[in-house]
Amino acid sequence: MPKLYADLNPPPRILMGPGPVDADPRVLNAMSMPLLGQFDPCFTGYMNEVMDLYRQVFKTKNHWAILVDGTARSATEACLSSVIEPGDTVLVPIFGRFGHLMKEISERAGGEVVTIETDWGTVFPQERIIAAIAEHRPKVVPLVHGDTSTTMAQPMDAVGPACRDHGALLYVDATATLGGMDVDVDGWHIDAVSAGLQKCMSGPPGSAPATFNERVVEVVERRKHVEEGIRPEGFEAGAGPTITSNYLDLPQLIGYWSTERLNHHTEATSMLYAARECARLALGEGLQARFERHRLTSRAMVAGLTAMGLELYGDLAHKMDNVTGVVIPEGVDGHAVRAAMLDDFGIEIGTSFGPLHGRVWRIGTMGYTCRKENALKCLGALEATLLQQGFKLPAGQGVAQALAVYREAEM
Amino acid sequence: MPKLYADLNPPPRILMGPGPVDADPRVLNAMSMPLLGQFDPCFTGYMNEVMDLYRQVFKTKNHWAILVDGTARSATEACLSSVIEPGDTVLVPIFGRFGHLMKEISERAGGEVVTIETDWGTVFPQERIIAAIAEHRPKVVPLVHGDTSTTMAQPMDAVGPACRDHGALLYVDATATLGGMDVDVDGWHIDAVSAGLQKCMSGPPGSAPATFNERVVEVVERRKHVEEGIRPEGFEAGAGPTITSNYLDLPQLIGYWSTERLNHHTEATSMLYAARECARLALGEGLQARFERHRLTSRAMVAGLTAMGLELYGDLAHKMDNVTGVVIPEGVDGHAVRAAMLDDFGIEIGTSFGPLHGRVWRIGTMGYTCRKENALKCLGALEATLLQQGFKLPAGQGVAQALAVYREAEM
Repeated sequence: MPKLYADLNPPPRILMGPGPVDADPRVLNAMSMPLLGQFDPCFTGYMNEVMDLYRQVFKTKNHWAILVDGTARSATEACLSSVIEPGDTVLVPIFGRFGHLMKEISERAGGEVVTIETDWGTVFPQERIIAAIAEHRPKVVPLVHGDTSTTMAQPMDAVGPACRDHGALLYVDATATLGGMDVDVDGWHIDAVSAGLQKCMSGPPGSAPATFNERVVEVVERRKHVEEGIRPEGFEAGAGPTITSNYLDLPQLIGYWSTERLNHHTEATSMLYAARECARLALGEGLQARFERHRLTSRAMVAGLTAMGLELYGDLAHKMDNVTGVVIPEGVDGHAVRAAMLDDFGIEIGTSFGPLHGRVWRIGTMGYTCRKENALKCLGALEATLLQQGFKLPAGQGVAQALAVYREAEM
Repeated sequence: MPKLYADLNPPPRILMGPGPVDADPRVLNAMSMPLLGQFDPCFTGYMNEVMDLYRQVFKTKNHWAILVDGTARSATEACLSSVIEPGDTVLVPIFGRFGHLMKEISERAGGEVVTIETDWGTVFPQERIIAAIAEHRPKVVPLVHGDTSTTMAQPMDAVGPACRDHGALLYVDATATLGGMDVDVDGWHIDAVSAGLQKCMSGPPGSAPATFNERVVEVVERRKHVEEGIRPEGFEAGAGPTITSNYLDLPQLIGYWSTERLNHHTEATSMLYAARECARLALGEGLQARFERHRLTSRAMVAGLTAMGLELYGDLAHKMDNVTGVVIPEGVDGHAVRAAMLDDFGIEIGTSFGPLHGRVWRIGTMGYTCRKENALKCLGALEATLLQQGFKLPAGQGVAQALAVYREAEM
């Protein structure tokens, strides 16, 4: 007899870790719509709409704004490994875990990687990145925007122009910020950028929006290679080295998203529905209003956590607006607190990676989860849980101070 | 003002192309369930259940039965490019478009690829593949099970044992057959196999189940490399060459799906819900019953189409049980017929690739779509459409003969 297990029945949670966070119910609804064939005129129409919606979300005039059918890092890899050829110099500024990921992907693509590092919990002065660009003359600069591992957001408006000056391409990983903080692709002269849905876009992981400009297209098109069997008549492969991945091959993805409709893969129908709805919801709310919403709740969380006598992690001047790091107080069992938050209150908060594992909690207030009632519930639950652990704190102050921030903003 | 486009509203269709086909509504429902954090005990429990469910679907005792977060070819690439090292000999038998894909992915991974080919519309006698294995002594043999481009299913029960004899690894692409035709992983001595959800598994594209045995694990574990930032303490990289892709790196995926829970990516929550439900539905129906259902409708389609005076494509003795190729009759505009089927009847059928583009229609009867009423509706609609085109046929015979097949089976 087959073993079928029980009906799917996820327990109700409020997801306030570093992501995935709660999906907007309208996004979940979109995913329950019937499928369409990938070349159905209605479906290719949806693909074109998705491109235009993400142009708006990314604030760009780029023609190409597409989805990569995978989780966030699949689009990072599609961008980097399609651009980086063996031997290319790549400059990776590292200020957290995801900088290491940029390095890893760049090295696997054959890049000669130079890194600069700054302490976790800080960001780079832009001049330092710019000086390194001038010194190393990289072909590509992969830069994380918001690194959830440290909760830091890297200012970068001056980095793009410096890349132009020195002939470098700037790739930005905006997985953790898109839809929650400004990602001004054209204003900051970003050449390629990608994200995911599962953070401030209020969707599930599994589809990765990306946009890139003509400077990138020029580099990758010379590496275009299409397999026999779907090769259009008269097709000539590019002169550059073939991209190692077929699945994450940017020129083929371009072919698929173009009117050519190169039959590269079968677009992930339901995830495209989700991505489309995520963008519509973000644009419908208004990007600016959405950024303010994240900023306000970030301020409320900072006020509340501080009022509870907790130390916040890192350089608060550069804290992301959608996640807050809390130093786990001495004598408190960080894991036990997270487990109790989940078991007693149904609230998930996270810890961090590597050097910060077990030293820091990360509380996400992202996308659909980023709401006053969730911030207050979380602070109340954390207070109760810490009191249970014997941690001394001024009871009632966390929620009160957070509420004060909201009250003031509502006036 | 942002441009938001209309609410998602896919027109009702019956998807009878080569996939995606209609998803089972219970799978669509599963995707509308709330998200969970990736390390939530309930979610990691679901991951473990998914592994066990796919062990049953794949008929294997392998420990590893996982999802790759991408469309079907992402899992093909994860398997092949994690196994194939630069310079390895790879033998690819090609009997359709997807054989070319196997070749392409193997070449990009650095393999020295030897191919054998047979005419489209035929399959290989197994002895020919076995002789080529003996001759070329490949490290890997990537073999397509059902190639939808030609509608042919390759017999392979003797190929796996031959691979064992000659020290080769057998990878099988079962994208188009899993859940619709027998894929007897252990019985046929397949070392690695992967699929998608969007054909006989009745789900959306975007998640790719894969299973592989210890022979594969041994090969890929020596290529294990984990980036700084998530590297466990004391981790030592394998001695083999690092896998080029980070996203499709099998040893890291193993780490993620193991109790180690290596934080490689963020599992695609909703697609995992879908994959779980797809497997439960297939096992609940019973694999054998499901295969019979596909076989019966295949016979009905063959009877109906033949009765209409249409020529079927390829070697019918090896036709897949879930897709039927029809030679487009001379004088009939194949594209116009497909467009009319879609516009007038809401039924999607497909054409094919490369040499068969515009020469063959492909009618899928897969998974949830594989039902008597759909087969009959499709035959009726095709008759009406062909009559509109001036094609002479014995009216009423298509549906009648198909119905006769069902009636006989019901007796």
